[in-house]
Amino acid sequence: MITERGLDGLLVSQPENYRYLSGFTGSSGWLLISGSHAILATDSRYTEQAKQETQDFEVAQIRGELDSWLPQLASDLQWHELGFEANHLSFAAHHKLSESMKTKQLNLQLIPTTNLVECLRCIKEPRELELITKAVELTDAAFEQARAIIHPGVTEREAAWEIEKFLRQNGSEGIAFDPIVASGPNSALPHARPTERILHSGEVVLIDMGARIGGYCSDFSRTLCLGEALKAVSCQLSAIYNVVLEAQLAAIDKIKTGMTASQADRLARNVITEAGYGDAFGHGLGHGVGIAIHESPTLSPTSTEYLLDGMVFTVEPGIYITGLGGVRIEDVVTLEKGRAKVLTRSAKALQYVM
Amino acid sequence: MITERGLDGLLVSQPENYRYLSGFTGSSGWLLISGSHAILATDSRYTEQAKQETQDFEVAQIRGELDSWLPQLASDLQWHELGFEANHLSFAAHHKLSESMKTKQLNLQLIPTTNLVECLRCIKEPRELELITKAVELTDAAFEQARAIIHPGVTEREAAWEIEKFLRQNGSEGIAFDPIVASGPNSALPHARPTERILHSGEVVLIDMGARIGGYCSDFSRTLCLGEALKAVSCQLSAIYNVVLEAQLAAIDKIKTGMTASQADRLARNVITEAGYGDAFGHGLGHGVGIAIHESPTLSPTSTEYLLDGMVFTVEPGIYITGLGGVRIEDVVTLEKGRAKVLTRSAKALQYVM
Repeated sequence: MITERGLDGLLVSQPENYRYLSGFTGSSGWLLISGSHAILATDSRYTEQAKQETQDFEVAQIRGELDSWLPQLASDLQWHELGFEANHLSFAAHHKLSESMKTKQLNLQLIPTTNLVECLRCIKEPRELELITKAVELTDAAFEQARAIIHPGVTEREAAWEIEKFLRQNGSEGIAFDPIVASGPNSALPHARPTERILHSGEVVLIDMGARIGGYCSDFSRTLCLGEALKAVSCQLSAIYNVVLEAQLAAIDKIKTGMTASQADRLARNVITEAGYGDAFGHGLGHGVGIAIHESPTLSPTSTEYLLDGMVFTVEPGIYITGLGGVRIEDVVTLEKGRAKVLTRSAKALQYVM
Repeated sequence: MITERGLDGLLVSQPENYRYLSGFTGSSGWLLISGSHAILATDSRYTEQAKQETQDFEVAQIRGELDSWLPQLASDLQWHELGFEANHLSFAAHHKLSESMKTKQLNLQLIPTTNLVECLRCIKEPRELELITKAVELTDAAFEQARAIIHPGVTEREAAWEIEKFLRQNGSEGIAFDPIVASGPNSALPHARPTERILHSGEVVLIDMGARIGGYCSDFSRTLCLGEALKAVSCQLSAIYNVVLEAQLAAIDKIKTGMTASQADRLARNVITEAGYGDAFGHGLGHGVGIAIHESPTLSPTSTEYLLDGMVFTVEPGIYITGLGGVRIEDVVTLEKGRAKVLTRSAKALQYVM
C-alpha cells in the first residue's frame, strides 16, 4: 500500500484509522508506517495505555506538536517521501510541518493521500463481523425493550434515555450515537433530537439507535405506530410505511457484489419514486458501519464506490413529509457470496403499540 | 475583528465557534461573516433547526462540499480576501477550495487565521457564567451522590456509571466527558478509564467528571480515601494529598488578573516541586472551560496567554506515583475584579469513605 504509491512512509493521524491498524484507543496518537517500521507515537499521558493495547507497534513517547518531533524522526528513518492523510491534517499543522522541514533543510517531502486506511477498513475480517453482529444483537434486544417502554404519555426524551440505559447496562461501550426518538411531526426530520414532546395515540414514532461492542458499532431504525391498529395513524402514513418497507426489501433482495453503491441506492429509490415520494427521500440509502458509525461505503445517488464481499453497511430508505411525519426502516447487512445477508433480526411489518 | 485584519469576510467552520456566534448546534454548518453579512450555511438536514436556533444569521441552504458552493457565494458577496480557520480546515478541503477558485478565475484569496473566535470565547458573558455555575453546582451534587455510592466492593465502572446516571437524570445534556473513577494504582494515570477493578479499603479513588447545562461545561475532580481514617491509605499518599491541596489553595489565593497563564501554573508547581514531587506533576495546572471542556486559556509552564477578568478555568494540580496512586484536586474558578473566585463548592479536606 505504501511502497506501491512511491512513499517511504505513511503518517496516520485519524483516530479510527490508527485504532484499526494498531489497536490503540487513546485520543491522541500518530502511526508512522513503512515496509520495515511500525511506530506508534504518543505523549506521556498515553504511553502506558499504548503499550498495553498494541502488539505490533513500537511505542515512541513524543512531546509537543507534530512539527517539533516528526521531521527529525522521519529523517532518522531516512524517509524522503512521507504520505499524510490530507482529509485529517489541518491546513495549519501541515503548514507548520512544512516550515519546520524547510528550516531544518531536511530532504523530506510531504505527500497528500486520501482513503488509504479507509479502503482497508471497509472490508471486514471475521473478527470484526463478529463484533458488529454482537452490537446488532444488542440493538435488537434494545428494540424489544423500547416496545415495552414506548406508549402514549411518555416523552421522547424519557424514551431515548431508557433506550440508552438499556444499551449501556447490557454491554454497550458508551453508545454509537445519541438515540433518536421522534414522534408525530418530529419524525419528519431525519436528524431529529429527542424533545420533551409527549407521545400521542394515532402518531408514528421513529427510533434510531446504535450500540458499540469491542469498538464496533451497530445502527438500527424502526418506525412504530402508537394506538390501536384500526384507528391509529393516518391512511397516508400507513401507505408510506408500506412503500418504505417495499423499497427496503427490494434493495436487500437485489443488492449484489460488484454493483456500484449508487446502483444499490437506486434499487430502493426507484420504488419510492414510482410511488410518488421521490422528493421525500432526502438522504442516501445507507453507509458503512464499523469502528465509525459512518464509514465507507456511502450508498447514495452520486457514490462511485463499488460494493464488495465483506463490506458491512446499512440499508435505510425513508420518506419524510413535513408536518405529517416520517418513516425509516434500517437494517445492517453484510455482503457474503455476492448477496446481502441481513444481520438485524427485528420484525419489519408495521407494529402498533398501545 | 474581521476588518481590522484586512479581511472582507471570515469563514467559521469549527463547531464550538459557530455555536458560540450563532447558537446553531447542528454538527454540520459554516458561518460567513463580514461587516454587513451574517450567513449560516447548512444542508437540508439542518436548515429547519438552524432557523429555529439562530436569530442574527440568515440561513442559506447549501449542497455538496465546500468547494462546490463557497467560491460562488463569496464572489457574489464581492469578497476578495476571505479568512478561514487554519486549525480547523483540512489540508484537502483547503486544496480543493483553492483549485476551484483558480478554475473559476475568481478574484478571491484564502487567508489563514487562528484563534479569532477562541479569543472572544475565553471571556465569558454573565449569561455564560450563569450556565457554567449551574453545571458546576450539578457536579457538586453528583459528588455528594458519589460519596454515598463509592465504597469498597464496588467496581470503578459501576461507580462511573452511577455518576453518569445521576448527572443525566438531573439535567446534564449528555455529559461533558466520560467520568473517570480510578482506584489504587490506576489513579496514577491522569487519563485513566474506569475498569472492572474492585475498590479496596486502604486505597485512594480519584473521581473526575463534568456536566453540561445549556451547552456549557463544568469540570470537577476530588480524591477520596477508602476505609477508616487511621488505618487507611499509606502515609505517603496522605502526605501527597496535603501537598496537592496546599498547591491548589496557593494557586487560587495568588492568581491575579494580568498574570500570564504560565505564572499561574508556577504558583502551584513551586509548592509541589519544593515538596520533592515536581516530576510527578506531569500536566498543566488547568484549562479554560466553556462550550468546550478544554478551551483557552491553557495554564501550563509554556503558555504565553494572559489571564483576564471574565475568564473561567480549572485549577487542578496533581501528583501521580506509578504503582502507588495519584491525587488530583480540581475546582472551576472565574477571574472577577482581579482575583480568582471559586465556583466549585465541594469540600477539599481529605475525606474517608467506608
